[in-house]
Amino acid sequence: AQDTTVAWKGAPQWTNDDVQFKVRGRLLIDYVFQDVDRVAPLADYQTSNIRGRQAFLGVEGKLNNYIAYKAEGGAVNGGAWSWDDVVIEFKPNEWTSIMVGNIKAAGLENLTSTRFLSFMDRGPYGDMGPDSYLASVVAKANGLNWTLTGAIQGNSLNSGDVNNTAGANPGSKERIGYTVRGSYAPILTDMDKVHLGAFARYRNHGDESGFSFAGRPSTGYGDSGRYYTTGAIGDTDVTYGVEGAWVHNNFSVQGEYADIKVNRLKTVAAGGDPDVKVGYAFVSFWPTGESRNYDAAKGEFGRPKIIDPITAGGLGGVELLARYDYADLTDAYSTATTAAGKTLSQDAGKYKGWTLGANYYPTAYVRLQANYTSADIDNPGPGRDVKINQFQMRAQLDF
Amino acid sequence: AQDTTVAWKGAPQWTNDDVQFKVRGRLLIDYVFQDVDRVAPLADYQTSNIRGRQAFLGVEGKLNNYIAYKAEGGAVNGGAWSWDDVVIEFKPNEWTSIMVGNIKAAGLENLTSTRFLSFMDRGPYGDMGPDSYLASVVAKANGLNWTLTGAIQGNSLNSGDVNNTAGANPGSKERIGYTVRGSYAPILTDMDKVHLGAFARYRNHGDESGFSFAGRPSTGYGDSGRYYTTGAIGDTDVTYGVEGAWVHNNFSVQGEYADIKVNRLKTVAAGGDPDVKVGYAFVSFWPTGESRNYDAAKGEFGRPKIIDPITAGGLGGVELLARYDYADLTDAYSTATTAAGKTLSQDAGKYKGWTLGANYYPTAYVRLQANYTSADIDNPGPGRDVKINQFQMRAQLDF
Amino acid sequence: AQDTTVAWKGAPQWTNDDVQFKVRGRLLIDYVFQDVDRVAPLADYQTSNIRGRQAFLGVEGKLNNYIAYKAEGGAVNGGAWSWDDVVIEFKPNEWTSIMVGNIKAAGLENLTSTRFLSFMDRGPYGDMGPDSYLASVVAKANGLNWTLTGAIQGNSLNSGDVNNTAGANPGSKERIGYTVRGSYAPILTDMDKVHLGAFARYRNHGDESGFSFAGRPSTGYGDSGRYYTTGAIGDTDVTYGVEGAWVHNNFSVQGEYADIKVNRLKTVAAGGDPDVKVGYAFVSFWPTGESRNYDAAKGEFGRPKIIDPITAGGLGGVELLARYDYADLTDAYSTATTAAGKTLSQDAGKYKGWTLGANYYPTAYVRLQANYTSADIDNPGPGRDVKINQFQMRAQLDF
Repeated sequence: AQDTTVAWKGAPQWTNDDVQFKVRGRLLIDYVFQDVDRVAPLADYQTSNIRGRQAFLGVEGKLNNYIAYKAEGGAVNGGAWSWDDVVIEFKPNEWTSIMVGNIKAAGLENLTSTRFLSFMDRGPYGDMGPDSYLASVVAKANGLNWTLTGAIQGNSLNSGDVNNTAGANPGSKERIGYTVRGSYAPILTDMDKVHLGAFARYRNHGDESGFSFAGRPSTGYGDSGRYYTTGAIGDTDVTYGVEGAWVHNNFSVQGEYADIKVNRLKTVAAGGDPDVKVGYAFVSFWPTGESRNYDAAKGEFGRPKIIDPITAGGLGGVELLARYDYADLTDAYSTATTAAGKTLSQDAGKYKGWTLGANYYPTAYVRLQANYTSADIDNPGPGRDVKINQFQMRAQLDF
Repeated sequence: AQDTTVAWKGAPQWTNDDVQFKVRGRLLIDYVFQDVDRVAPLADYQTSNIRGRQAFLGVEGKLNNYIAYKAEGGAVNGGAWSWDDVVIEFKPNEWTSIMVGNIKAAGLENLTSTRFLSFMDRGPYGDMGPDSYLASVVAKANGLNWTLTGAIQGNSLNSGDVNNTAGANPGSKERIGYTVRGSYAPILTDMDKVHLGAFARYRNHGDESGFSFAGRPSTGYGDSGRYYTTGAIGDTDVTYGVEGAWVHNNFSVQGEYADIKVNRLKTVAAGGDPDVKVGYAFVSFWPTGESRNYDAAKGEFGRPKIIDPITAGGLGGVELLARYDYADLTDAYSTATTAAGKTLSQDAGKYKGWTLGANYYPTAYVRLQANYTSADIDNPGPGRDVKINQFQMRAQLDF
Repeated sequence: AQDTTVAWKGAPQWTNDDVQFKVRGRLLIDYVFQDVDRVAPLADYQTSNIRGRQAFLGVEGKLNNYIAYKAEGGAVNGGAWSWDDVVIEFKPNEWTSIMVGNIKAAGLENLTSTRFLSFMDRGPYGDMGPDSYLASVVAKANGLNWTLTGAIQGNSLNSGDVNNTAGANPGSKERIGYTVRGSYAPILTDMDKVHLGAFARYRNHGDESGFSFAGRPSTGYGDSGRYYTTGAIGDTDVTYGVEGAWVHNNFSVQGEYADIKVNRLKTVAAGGDPDVKVGYAFVSFWPTGESRNYDAAKGEFGRPKIIDPITAGGLGGVELLARYDYADLTDAYSTATTAAGKTLSQDAGKYKGWTLGANYYPTAYVRLQANYTSADIDNPGPGRDVKINQFQMRAQLDF
């Protein structure tokens, strides 16, 4: 029999010196309203939905001091069950881990859990910057104020096998990627925290469809690429990304930028090799005095500590936010040399979006969010420009 | 560290004054046999399947005295994972709660968990009366013998986003509904309990397909609408429903009735505005002496208490049942003014069904059920009448 | 309140004399490389994927000494959620159980959990020998060294209902099967354990598609039947299978063989009634001294005990393996009497495959596996022969 102590983290976490176990999960319920203006003769329209953003169940545990596991996933809005984090972790020592599973490797906001993002969604940088969860082998080393990560990555654990063996020209190698990322916190005081990071990535699309660079207007609603996309033009690509954040007490700024050097898949559309550029910057301010919770040993942000939660008779915490998102896909259009390639990339435009946000935290495990986004998409194809006004709200609880 | 006590409710429930956590789930495995008689030249046929009715995993917990959560879902018979209960609950005080998630708002049998229904399935009233789980915001107040509920409701958390933005006439507003329900128990003694309830509901189909009024013959097997359906004729509707139940020791009666005033979606089929009428009544008798477990503070029935379970060396509990189901969709046919509209509503008939049932409970968490249903469907289209004899059994366990 | 003790089995298991509960799950992440040689003009090709083999969450519990439950399932590679083990178990006494759910009934390797197989996958015998999980009612009796099982089986809990009621000739009876299996351990000492077993099975395809006898080359990757299959030719079948294993300290041998006597579904392809023959044999050797963990009271193998796990400062356990797989489907081709039937069964060939394997267990709950398979498929259709070289690796953790 094992004696364990129980810590309550939304749900019980059983721990002793060797082992650990916790059931985990999250519920993110959204309301989304979108007002879409298009160029005549395309009609304008409005959308509205009450929908799930994430409804997850999962577990996390430690078998012993060397081996840990995590698995969490769910399904919403008619989609199939899909896994988020799935990790088998080997820890030869306290500062090193080798992980196999469905794992993210790079990007400050990308690595930060959706539960702890300041905004409701990541914007174009999340849609086409560093990769989200991929079936990977990842090695990670860290110190108190730095991290270094290397990853070999296939496609997502949730994507079907590449199995196109029936055709005249069979071949079924999965896409493959290699990512390295480093982060460093040169300043790490009670009052000030500075995060610097960078990543590089090479990818080859293998026998899967070519890489497409596409996104949504800072929301989880709707089809990625409905309003801006290059089409599936990427054979291989090399990406360089930089990250920066400065937390000063209850004020913080954060930004990331990536340049994706695309090697064009000429069998799809002839032409030159475009660059895709994407980035964002935002400011956060907590009138109730909280600080965004930077974890320098992980190189990401975690759960905020609420100073005066309702469980202590307080009023909870409030965060106010403003953000600018930018993506430039226009090279995909200008380097296309055929009419079909121009049509494929007719929506490969410039995305510029402003988002204002407010979060209310009754406790650290629950929040209500509201985001207003105004996005302007200047697409190169004739009559393809889109303006979007979008209002979203979320009720979130995790455990 | 948190000290908690453990209560065993099929699975451990950890509790203290502030927090609570339990893993929950259920397994309902069915055998269904159906004998279908149709009008020549349509062929008669028989069906039989061993199948899952529900196989669910989930969790429930309390973060503190003000905030609770629940999520439970599963998948059977080749269907995708879908959520049942998903709730983030805010409780400003003991008698009030505001809930966001996938929630039901009205109807005595509808609100009663499938685990605790006397019959294996709800019948036409469950198929087309009050809405099942919908992505909603729900406010509820209650006393010891009354409840009052108001809900704003989209579509199910499991339904895909409305996203029909590509066509010539785009529009993607989700269906919206408003429901209010009240319940009151004028008599609440050890020997007798009387439940009275009523609900009203307005719905608009938005940019989704029109509301269809359709059902199955008191089973979870088969396609809803295969034997009786109005077709997707509803633009908006207003529904009034009433509920009544009387528990007298080991004897009880229960019934509900609703009138759905449908505003016809004339772009689908021209015609007048039909009324859909649907209801049921049943009697229950426990020869082993148990009482159906009415919870007046919730306005629904809960888990029965078995007097002499096998765990106490007893023989378990037995419930015997008889039920009448009725639905009248004929207005949909008679108000249709075009041949196409008549064909669309050719199966908008009168459903009359008798069900006999028996339940055996070895303990309160396990039961074996058998239901026999004889249903007669008198459809208005020529040669569309159907007679169904159906026998079903279930093994059920929940925790 | 219930006092329970906690045993750590990858995750906490709460137990007392009456009740039990544990959250369970498993993560099996694979890399698969296949090199496929075909007869010209069909092209050769190579495949590679990082993929999930199983990612499961589940629970198991005991309500009391008479009733237990288990449910475990998951989703990977774009597939829908599907259940593995789903069981409601009634135990009238210690040596008897009646189970309802998604259950396996026969076959030594088939009954052994994928977590505890010596090889990464079961080979053709697993693909077309005894049935995997089916929605069933199963009765089982056992002593210390014998088991006897009888099962009535529909299709899987994950398969859609048979519901082909719309056609001119409707009929929707699910497939049905009856299986009996016995096992006996004539020798059961610390040093030597001998397992003998046999099963017989009758199946009728009902109104589902005819039984197809098809497999993969000892892997979970790829479509079953891509390289060898009879096509859906089976109306009913009768199967006799035998099982044997001998564990001598750290050395063991195991083999199974089945003869499937197929009654041809003549509405699909005319002809005589073929026999399908399938079997395997393997040897296992643990240089680190462990023994494969035979459980004579269950008639299957369980989790190995690692003598010197890394948690005790050791190096873990190593198992080395060699295996031969054989399947002969050729009767399906030779008994077909029409050209269409010959084409349907053009890949009904002889499968012969060798697999070498190595497993490394840091602890009993984690393992790394590597399998190399060389398979030769001699198909009767002209130009349909296939040679496969396959290398697979797995990281596995269960709890």
